[in-house]
Amino acid sequence: MLTRIDHIGIACFDLDRTVEFYRATYGFEVFHSEVNEEQGVREAMLKINDTGDGGASYLQLLEPTREDSTVAKWLAKNGEGVHHIAFGTADVDGDAAAIAGKGVRVLYDQPRIGSMGSRITFLHPKDCGGVLTELVTSAEPSGEH
Amino acid sequence: MLTRIDHIGIACFDLDRTVEFYRATYGFEVFHSEVNEEQGVREAMLKINDTGDGGASYLQLLEPTREDSTVAKWLAKNGEGVHHIAFGTADVDGDAAAIAGKGVRVLYDQPRIGSMGSRITFLHPKDCGGVLTELVTSAEPSGEH
Repeated sequence: MLTRIDHIGIACFDLDRTVEFYRATYGFEVFHSEVNEEQGVREAMLKINDTGDGGASYLQLLEPTREDSTVAKWLAKNGEGVHHIAFGTADVDGDAAAIAGKGVRVLYDQPRIGSMGSRITFLHPKDCGGVLTELVTSAEPSGEH
Repeated sequence: MLTRIDHIGIACFDLDRTVEFYRATYGFEVFHSEVNEEQGVREAMLKINDTGDGGASYLQLLEPTREDSTVAKWLAKNGEGVHHIAFGTADVDGDAAAIAGKGVRVLYDQPRIGSMGSRITFLHPKDCGGVLTELVTSAEPSGEH
């Protein structure tokens, strides 16, 4: 069951500049940053609010680390902007299987590692009204931290 | 001060079909629906989670009601997908003024009426890394419902 908006993924050309925009404009601070080599991104997570399920909602700012990453290709086509949205669940495996059973294409055979050690998968945007949709189970059983 | 992700605005050609997708795929139910003639949209709000500031996060599904609405023009150019993101604040007037003072273009002189009687304004996407960004103050002082 999807119990929160986990994050909004925003693609940018210059992560440092974008982090500074969100800090200077809104006061949002970096909660966590990492490089995800598999996804080909450098990212910063800005925590916006806690959520009623014990988790939190973030902005995830994404800069590609290589030209063949999906985010780099997306940026080349679309320019900067909202790249995907993500819903949090306690059971990404079960939810992905259930959603696949409804005819929505799930992009990974098995969940992969996302931000902060979470387990993630993606749903095909063409099956989701143009919205690249991620499902996330946080690393910690209680939600996030 | 922006204290939550208030909603993610998703533009679609067929609201009823999109509502049914979110219900059938994820179990999300319509919390509220309305027509906003000024914005030129018919919309459905799907409540996803409560937020730590006493409010909530929603998906806002938007179908244009007329061809000259900004959402209709956006759909003609981009196709279906994420149209904007919105942050919740107790003081949309004060936050919009402070953000304008930082050189970000605010699209309305005064906040207008948004979903569920909220007061809203928008920030120019070209000043926000390609992200059309809305600020929202809910109708009820305590947040949402």
